[in-house]
Amino acid sequence: MRKIFFTVGPTERHPKLDAFIRDALRCNIVSISHRGEEFSEIYRHAVESLRKLLGVPKNFHVFFLGSATEAMERIIENSVERRSVHFVNGAFSKRFYVTAVELRKKAMKIEAARGASFDFSKTTIPRDAELIALTHNETATGVSLSMSDVYALRKKHPNVLIALDIVSSAPYVRVDYRYVDCAFFSVQKGFGLPSGLGVLFVNERCIEKANVLSRKKVNIGSFHNYPSLLASEAKLQTPETPNVLGMYLLGRVADDYLATGIERIRKETEQKAKLLYDFFDSHPDFASFVKDRTARSSTVIVAEAKRGSRAPLALLARNGIIAGPGYGEFAGRHIRIGNFPMHRLSDMKRIIRVLS
Amino acid sequence: MRKIFFTVGPTERHPKLDAFIRDALRCNIVSISHRGEEFSEIYRHAVESLRKLLGVPKNFHVFFLGSATEAMERIIENSVERRSVHFVNGAFSKRFYVTAVELRKKAMKIEAARGASFDFSKTTIPRDAELIALTHNETATGVSLSMSDVYALRKKHPNVLIALDIVSSAPYVRVDYRYVDCAFFSVQKGFGLPSGLGVLFVNERCIEKANVLSRKKVNIGSFHNYPSLLASEAKLQTPETPNVLGMYLLGRVADDYLATGIERIRKETEQKAKLLYDFFDSHPDFASFVKDRTARSSTVIVAEAKRGSRAPLALLARNGIIAGPGYGEFAGRHIRIGNFPMHRLSDMKRIIRVLS
Repeated sequence: MRKIFFTVGPTERHPKLDAFIRDALRCNIVSISHRGEEFSEIYRHAVESLRKLLGVPKNFHVFFLGSATEAMERIIENSVERRSVHFVNGAFSKRFYVTAVELRKKAMKIEAARGASFDFSKTTIPRDAELIALTHNETATGVSLSMSDVYALRKKHPNVLIALDIVSSAPYVRVDYRYVDCAFFSVQKGFGLPSGLGVLFVNERCIEKANVLSRKKVNIGSFHNYPSLLASEAKLQTPETPNVLGMYLLGRVADDYLATGIERIRKETEQKAKLLYDFFDSHPDFASFVKDRTARSSTVIVAEAKRGSRAPLALLARNGIIAGPGYGEFAGRHIRIGNFPMHRLSDMKRIIRVLS
Repeated sequence: MRKIFFTVGPTERHPKLDAFIRDALRCNIVSISHRGEEFSEIYRHAVESLRKLLGVPKNFHVFFLGSATEAMERIIENSVERRSVHFVNGAFSKRFYVTAVELRKKAMKIEAARGASFDFSKTTIPRDAELIALTHNETATGVSLSMSDVYALRKKHPNVLIALDIVSSAPYVRVDYRYVDCAFFSVQKGFGLPSGLGVLFVNERCIEKANVLSRKKVNIGSFHNYPSLLASEAKLQTPETPNVLGMYLLGRVADDYLATGIERIRKETEQKAKLLYDFFDSHPDFASFVKDRTARSSTVIVAEAKRGSRAPLALLARNGIIAGPGYGEFAGRHIRIGNFPMHRLSDMKRIIRVLS
């Protein structure tokens, strides 16, 4: 029986991945020089398709890193001399906060209960904050921030940089890049690609801040600091030999999503999410973990399993459906289902049939 | 006509790469969780095969990073509070030095002319040196250090950590790990794999130093600092979602090399290198760039092209042979040929036939 992965990332691979990899091998993508024109064309193509797909404007640079976790490190290194502020409501937003602590910054966290969003009207951002770190979609708990709350923060604190983790919500999430300064994701979730590639968008304000820090002799990292990434980007190159295959595949998948149409992908994502949430809310053995409907993620659907998640996960697995267990403290109590463009409505109906 | 890449990395892919990738796709390697047993088995397998192939003893940890360039950064961050010493004789050894400068260390460089090795007997290592950084095989110029010189340094400075870049010499190079503290490579050279994965071996002395620095509140990085990598390694995991496909493929290629036998690979590498050097030394239009025979790399063969390298490189390309141009200042004057296990003796004879 063919397995389908509904895990939240790595997840089911893009249905055309195998064909794209065959193309890559046929065209010697794994052998070409990362200092040559063929590579620059791959870089240019991936960037252009991503800009189109995600609406990333020209005043943002597109940098390629090893992972989204690395993106957190590079953002802190290049944007914060002393103080960052982190909205923490799960393991991944916490990882961003811990990154800043490890990098010896005066990091501050504003916490919300697991499974809940924040009351932004009641939060105070300290005067010396240089960066506000937000996790749009908390992969551990399935809580999504409202983008209007994010934009309101930026309007209220126009001089503070806003960093947005869209790891498990891209390409679904609609971001107005006028109101954030950097955003990042990795490719093994919504793009259904092999892991090992992170993408970071940064605007000129971020570059400027990195330059200020550098002039102050603050340690902003080495090969992947913004000035270094920027100098390479100008040549359509990367400072190191990057994951060329990953960049090629990302361009191909972005093209495929463009052909489908991002609005159709968004609509279908919401339809599939509604189906699952409605099921979990109406079944006696389950309940949606996120109670506030406006905070429910469309791409990571988390259900409480009232009799424990071991049996339902095993039942799904016997039917070829691999879903995720609860994260950390919720292992054994939650079911987490990734709802990405690769997952079809009929697949979601099958999950419901099996669990019914 | 099928192209063969003799570039120094990325280079010709391993002849079984396509089959290994097909296996990976069939086994859902790109979809499995990086927190599950299947991934841990991939990790364990890659590490065990690499240890066997390269003779890396048990007191060394094996960490997976995004690139060899990242390895340089992590080594400096985790091993140096103030002072590192770098032997610089080309662009890649210089990159290691620049990394330390960028990370705000008091980095010192000991230079040799491009194309030459160092007179180790005449070099003075300052008393406050914490790390000596050595590039075994300078990919830019084709100069190899003698390993006995490396070991002598360690014996003379037993309290200084020795870092060895084996990026373009692994798996050929024979390292006695009693006399170095860390070593690193990337997979797109001697392993013929897609780029996007670096491997770092570190011993307990390095771990201890990182812990000392951490206790002193020195910034040793975040998710990829040694304590974090070590904690993940204990679970056969990585801190972030890594390049799982790359790790799987590395294990497979290491197994393939083990089946061939590392001694046979070494012997064949030397035979192929001798063939090329003898040809370049005897042909009126060419000369080996590295004059000192004991300093000539067996894996990166660099020739001066007396009438310029543009025409011979184009001639090779018309025959399906992609060789490398000179690096940096030597563009247009050098031919660089990667001599890795994927490159057969018959391929080298073809290069010679075409250039004759």
